[in-house]
Amino acid sequence: MTTRIVELRRGILKKNDELAAGLRERFASAGVLVLNLVSSPGTGKTALLERTLRDLRSRGMRVAALVGDLETDHDARRLAASGAPVRQINTHGICHLDAEMVGRHLDAWPDVALSSLDCLFIENVGNLVCPSSYDLGERIRVVLLSVTEGEDKPLKYPGLFNSADAAVITKMDLAAPCGFDRELATGNVNQIRPGIRIFYTSAKTGAGIEEWLNYLAGQARCL
Amino acid sequence: MTTRIVELRRGILKKNDELAAGLRERFASAGVLVLNLVSSPGTGKTALLERTLRDLRSRGMRVAALVGDLETDHDARRLAASGAPVRQINTHGICHLDAEMVGRHLDAWPDVALSSLDCLFIENVGNLVCPSSYDLGERIRVVLLSVTEGEDKPLKYPGLFNSADAAVITKMDLAAPCGFDRELATGNVNQIRPGIRIFYTSAKTGAGIEEWLNYLAGQARCL
Repeated sequence: MTTRIVELRRGILKKNDELAAGLRERFASAGVLVLNLVSSPGTGKTALLERTLRDLRSRGMRVAALVGDLETDHDARRLAASGAPVRQINTHGICHLDAEMVGRHLDAWPDVALSSLDCLFIENVGNLVCPSSYDLGERIRVVLLSVTEGEDKPLKYPGLFNSADAAVITKMDLAAPCGFDRELATGNVNQIRPGIRIFYTSAKTGAGIEEWLNYLAGQARCL
Repeated sequence: MTTRIVELRRGILKKNDELAAGLRERFASAGVLVLNLVSSPGTGKTALLERTLRDLRSRGMRVAALVGDLETDHDARRLAASGAPVRQINTHGICHLDAEMVGRHLDAWPDVALSSLDCLFIENVGNLVCPSSYDLGERIRVVLLSVTEGEDKPLKYPGLFNSADAAVITKMDLAAPCGFDRELATGNVNQIRPGIRIFYTSAKTGAGIEEWLNYLAGQARCL
């Protein structure tokens, strides 16, 4: 059975890669910067995104978000308060988003034309393992790690950190009560993905958010 | 391809269920209470287990742990400081433990006879989705949720909460800085798994640990 599983798994990933390549081309023609946000459940993807959508809009950028969860539309409702177009993807038991789901939801989103956007954020299902294998056609994969999770996570989940283009440390406002060791966490991220850009943020206090927004705006300009 | 995937997935889970049934019988004959600890990465499974192993040993109970991670043996080294026998399982990219891994590691653990133990803890890979489908032959599945993760997680990851026999809220020492809403979290756990036993703990301060240890000791006596 193992050989069949390996073959089938390769087949699924190959199919996903083909669909993702199509999406990537579509995003490039539309001139939209697409980011795939990945992390554990509860790292604060939605809180960062809430603030990011609101602040980028106030800079005049046109932004939207697709948000993945197994169940519920809580996150879409939270994010919609920013005024940006938001669409919820419920995976019903599937532990990651894939390119097919993203393509299907984009096609079924009549009020949003990709070419009218500067940035599209895709918030993945909370999971530090499985999303690493599924390309969504994004230009930038952002891995988030909260100060509450432990500095060792990059070493324990190297696949996801190794496939990321940028890292955001979240909940810096809780660094002191958690005894967060910034040097150790930074060292561990760099050990898995040397030289990756790292942002140290708190969506609550706004710490580090300006730098993160400047990075996004810069990336959107460079398309 | 979808039909083949569904069939193969069913086959894998059926095979796992058969192996898990064999393990369950083995654990019952040995008279050992086996627990499967599941949660997100960074919820504090290892910190709770560190304290649990140490405190149960000081009560004279014979305990051991199998600990799953994609990579590294950090957790096994942390847990071994308790004096209990501990064995690391590295899954190398697999997002959950399965019954085959558990059986194989038990067979290769010559210094530990199941019949000499009161409690065996299995710390699963940090993941709120995939471990729900893989029975490890445990008697009690414990889902952990930290106050830092957000009260909505039971609703967003119902599969894992629904398959659990007990829930442990961790990091209660951070409840105030996180603005943790205990009533809301408790209500959400109960919405998915009505009447489940819930412990509110801090491995750091020791809050709620006595009640948790009493529960474990009681369950071990009732085998």
